[in-house]
Amino acid sequence: MQQRSEETRARILQAAFQLFSQNGYDATGVAEICAAAGVSKGAFYHHFPTKQAAFFELLEGWLAGLDRQMDAILAASQNIPQALIEMAGILQEVFRAAGDRLPMFLEFWSQSSRDPQVWKTTIAPYRRYQDQFAGVIQNGIVEGSLRPVDPPVASRVILALATGLLLQGLLDPQGAAWDEIPLQGMEILLRGLERREA
Amino acid sequence: MQQRSEETRARILQAAFQLFSQNGYDATGVAEICAAAGVSKGAFYHHFPTKQAAFFELLEGWLAGLDRQMDAILAASQNIPQALIEMAGILQEVFRAAGDRLPMFLEFWSQSSRDPQVWKTTIAPYRRYQDQFAGVIQNGIVEGSLRPVDPPVASRVILALATGLLLQGLLDPQGAAWDEIPLQGMEILLRGLERREA
Repeated sequence: MQQRSEETRARILQAAFQLFSQNGYDATGVAEICAAAGVSKGAFYHHFPTKQAAFFELLEGWLAGLDRQMDAILAASQNIPQALIEMAGILQEVFRAAGDRLPMFLEFWSQSSRDPQVWKTTIAPYRRYQDQFAGVIQNGIVEGSLRPVDPPVASRVILALATGLLLQGLLDPQGAAWDEIPLQGMEILLRGLERREA
Repeated sequence: MQQRSEETRARILQAAFQLFSQNGYDATGVAEICAAAGVSKGAFYHHFPTKQAAFFELLEGWLAGLDRQMDAILAASQNIPQALIEMAGILQEVFRAAGDRLPMFLEFWSQSSRDPQVWKTTIAPYRRYQDQFAGVIQNGIVEGSLRPVDPPVASRVILALATGLLLQGLLDPQGAAWDEIPLQGMEILLRGLERREA
């Protein structure tokens, strides 16, 4: 029974993800999610008290995956510039794997701007990334690989590069080799952050 | 009569802008726009065939204003790095003037990702900016102020900085001095683009 329950839960999340991405959060009802997942409303509400709860779980699952990848890179990299280049590689993987998934990210942002409950849930990880990258920049300054920029500002620039490229890739998927742009972009940015050799 | 008609049109656009920003495009009906603007449905449809037509007019009005500012900067600036710094100033003004306006930008993106008609209307100016900034970068390389980067890639990085910072400012308006970050961010980016003195 436990295994079947887990499969039901996964099917609901999968269906919710596809419908939110395709039609948007507002336009997607629990009934449609149930129909697409092939489950009853009772099964849905057994797993999720509300549509929003399923939405949050999708967001948190995505962020948890990103966190694991970033932690692994920071633990293994020789220096901060190398770590930042490898993190740009995560973004390239997001593009490669994304395809029709990108609209979902926009839904997170769009809902956040209107719904205080969603906002509280998205702002916490966002501020965490902001702090985390500021710490990474600070470490780079201390190790001598980066020049003494303002870490919080540089952190925002890195986050802007990541989110801005995601947005562009979403709007214009055919417009560029999106699985190569993040690395090239990070190389330009890194050159603006690195300590210059005399 | 002409003047009164223009005033009615402006009131409708103002009301539509506020409602789209506050509640989102999908959740806003023509009836609500009319109520907020204090006009009849007949007056609305005299000016706009659909809700979407009002939406497009808001988008185009915003872009036309940005275009005028950028053209003026390019015409007046001494060199490309100076022009890019001054363009970051446009973004700072957007933040200063924006306040509760930013959610509207997200609506443009969010709708674009789902509605082919909206997409065609937003992708054209986006590609124009992409080409325009690539041309600016190319001019900087020719004039010798920028190093020989790939102009389309550098253009995407600049657009990512602009759109990514807008997104962050929207999600976390209290999180930073948003009217100062674009300039500081552009200075970091520019350092990655400029030709280094020997």
